[in-house]
Amino acid sequence: MPLTAATPEIVEALSAVLPEGRVGAVPPAYAEDPRGRALGTAIALVRPVSTREVAEVVRFAARNRVGLVPIGGGTGLVRGQIPDGPAPLLLSLERMNSVPAADPVDNVLVAEAGAILAEVQAAAEAVGRLFPLSLASEGSARIGGLLSTNAGGVNVLRYGNARELVLGIEAVLPDGSILDGPKRLRKDNTGYDLRNLLIGAEGTLGVITAASLRLFPRPAEEATALLAVRDPAAALELLGRLRDTMGEAVNAFELIARTSFDFLAEVLPEVPQPFAARPDWAVLVEAGGARGTQVAERLEAALADAFERELIHDALIAQNRQQAADFWGVREHIPEANKRIGAVASHDIALPVAQVPAFIAEAGAALHGIDARFRINCFGHLGDGNLHYNVFPAQAGGRDAHEHQRAAVTDCVHELVHRYHGSFSAEHGVGRLKVAELERYGGAAKLAAMRAIKTALDPHGIMNPGAVLRAE
Amino acid sequence: MPLTAATPEIVEALSAVLPEGRVGAVPPAYAEDPRGRALGTAIALVRPVSTREVAEVVRFAARNRVGLVPIGGGTGLVRGQIPDGPAPLLLSLERMNSVPAADPVDNVLVAEAGAILAEVQAAAEAVGRLFPLSLASEGSARIGGLLSTNAGGVNVLRYGNARELVLGIEAVLPDGSILDGPKRLRKDNTGYDLRNLLIGAEGTLGVITAASLRLFPRPAEEATALLAVRDPAAALELLGRLRDTMGEAVNAFELIARTSFDFLAEVLPEVPQPFAARPDWAVLVEAGGARGTQVAERLEAALADAFERELIHDALIAQNRQQAADFWGVREHIPEANKRIGAVASHDIALPVAQVPAFIAEAGAALHGIDARFRINCFGHLGDGNLHYNVFPAQAGGRDAHEHQRAAVTDCVHELVHRYHGSFSAEHGVGRLKVAELERYGGAAKLAAMRAIKTALDPHGIMNPGAVLRAE
Repeated sequence: MPLTAATPEIVEALSAVLPEGRVGAVPPAYAEDPRGRALGTAIALVRPVSTREVAEVVRFAARNRVGLVPIGGGTGLVRGQIPDGPAPLLLSLERMNSVPAADPVDNVLVAEAGAILAEVQAAAEAVGRLFPLSLASEGSARIGGLLSTNAGGVNVLRYGNARELVLGIEAVLPDGSILDGPKRLRKDNTGYDLRNLLIGAEGTLGVITAASLRLFPRPAEEATALLAVRDPAAALELLGRLRDTMGEAVNAFELIARTSFDFLAEVLPEVPQPFAARPDWAVLVEAGGARGTQVAERLEAALADAFERELIHDALIAQNRQQAADFWGVREHIPEANKRIGAVASHDIALPVAQVPAFIAEAGAALHGIDARFRINCFGHLGDGNLHYNVFPAQAGGRDAHEHQRAAVTDCVHELVHRYHGSFSAEHGVGRLKVAELERYGGAAKLAAMRAIKTALDPHGIMNPGAVLRAE
Repeated sequence: MPLTAATPEIVEALSAVLPEGRVGAVPPAYAEDPRGRALGTAIALVRPVSTREVAEVVRFAARNRVGLVPIGGGTGLVRGQIPDGPAPLLLSLERMNSVPAADPVDNVLVAEAGAILAEVQAAAEAVGRLFPLSLASEGSARIGGLLSTNAGGVNVLRYGNARELVLGIEAVLPDGSILDGPKRLRKDNTGYDLRNLLIGAEGTLGVITAASLRLFPRPAEEATALLAVRDPAAALELLGRLRDTMGEAVNAFELIARTSFDFLAEVLPEVPQPFAARPDWAVLVEAGGARGTQVAERLEAALADAFERELIHDALIAQNRQQAADFWGVREHIPEANKRIGAVASHDIALPVAQVPAFIAEAGAALHGIDARFRINCFGHLGDGNLHYNVFPAQAGGRDAHEHQRAAVTDCVHELVHRYHGSFSAEHGVGRLKVAELERYGGAAKLAAMRAIKTALDPHGIMNPGAVLRAE
């Protein structure tokens, strides 16, 4: 049965079952996609202040067969925001944003879903601990959205994705029942792993309302280096050698293509460029460890060895925090530079790590077969096999001339990724943008099982309709 | 609809759809529970050699409404083996036990579900890598069972439970469809996390047939120490200080009660006792790190500090591998000593780490209220908040006299665990032994969601009937 649109009457009826001030109009910021894509429309934003109120909203939506779309910080890149089709109710947990003091004995922090990531990081730091989830949007992304999309970021190599940083969740299921409190246990083998089922389900199986998050020791020693590498294969060999000699001390290992440096020079000339001559390929390495583990000395020794093996031909080692910040500044400004150039097509892909060099070579050749003018900016989390593989016109602002090629470009990239047994979405998720890709590449057994689970838990299809799975 | 028993006719029909030699009688070892509990009966063991054959068996069971019970190494402690009720077919993947060479670039090893853990560890070591899952039964436990029960063990503190060591799985779902090949990706946000749903589902949602497992750098430096600590609170404070100064280098942090040393002296006098005088509480610490991280020096410095703070009053630091093995020998012989004494009741509980000392005090008092003669052996993975909390008679072999108290003892422990927001099964799972506990403590929302998922994926209830969830 199709969903009903959220009419003014329905919105009024919802207002009547909630305390004053919970239901309002949709502020403009909620109607914007970070990449400027067209969104659907919604006429009401619900902002509950407690899990019980969230449950009330979910039950209302189920009773009235109205779609309910949870919105976090709105930073997602795959059109998980307002859908087309019958207008849904938007649900924001921004008022449920408390971050109680972190517990340095249990190494746990229990945050409400509306908490901003940067505030969670700060609360961990306040008790001398690290919450390692870190990504460009951390100043606005909220915990609920980060977990619902199983966010990645720059520290996955060492600490894992969002799901690996969670001990327990509290959630409202599509029938309005409340799952658990957020347990603080390291081990709990009592039944199906509903925690991980909800994490990464993008709000289609329920609403995460709170989470207990794992904290880690803060590295007392850190070292950051920006390295000019021969090619992606050399970068990969370097990664292997670093992990051999430094163990798990490698926090981040980011690949940067020459194109990234060129784009920065072209549209963000104010960003300092650390290399005198732009290298074809570079790697940003960050390592960290406890006091006395000689992180800097060991990194320098490993880099000296890499020089001798001709894996790297230039190495900038940060001498202070400012230099480290400058190196990270290069990496972190790449998305903005990309935006200003204007991509023909962007891809967030994962590959078996060892396959990355072969993929880069083959994909570049295939895309230049479509259009020899394309500029490819391939960068990202090489340590995780996760590349942001984006295709650009020869000149900034020239994307419109390639509109007719966009589908072919994405097809070319994703088909090749599939042949390499990779993923068409490493960390961004499926949203509404990649539903067709999931249908194409997900495999029949997986899709059937996902649909069975969706129908079992959300028989009316009210939760974030059309995201991940096509609305029936 | 109730299941049909696997009659000789049904077994014959199954034999007819499979190649020669796949179906046989049940060898005696498969009909034994490691703790000597009574099991049900089964008349046939199926041993397929490929995933396709597993799918064939599953489809046969679904068509004929016969229960199918996957058996791994048979080392589980919660009666996950042969159920009561209509005789099921037993399914062993012991012939699907290949462990291809590990990949030291991708840091991945793809093993079939029938592979023995010790062989997987050895394959990782052969390429200079570590597969950190480690537990007493590693010589016979198989990967399929270890993942299906989300096994724990002694290295969880540093490396996580089994589920955190898995990149991807291949599985046969209850309709006979085959889920994925085992992906080798660090990141893959394309739909619901079916991998983690099957891990820990104890074979009730399908059969894991293969897995890609994460490998880690091998610690080049290691240090092991056995410490006499003042009490559990001091042990906990020590853990916090070690993690502050040593970061993630602490592999294992195991609590050992005086009772453990007493039991060893009583029934396993051949096990060397490292302490001249048995301490009330001891901790076994193992730390490891990359070359140059000065693991031993840093541990010694931390222990000197702990002496000054009077957290520890005796410290034995292993001077060589043999001594380290002797220290671990104490820890590893505790379960055998327990077995020889004969427990009134055993519990595998998890608590928020910071609550462990209060729990130990309160539980001891409550149990001695039931019977002042009880001896309590409380030991295990303190770093994970996971205690094996076992209750014994005053004399070895005296358990039968306490038979009438067993239910009250377990109730007492589990009720208290529940009040401390803990778990009645930290690492052993639910099996058939703890189904009632799950119903009592799991919470209505969780149980309803679990049942909905079970029914959606396994409408005939053929997969491991009666485990985790009561058979309908």
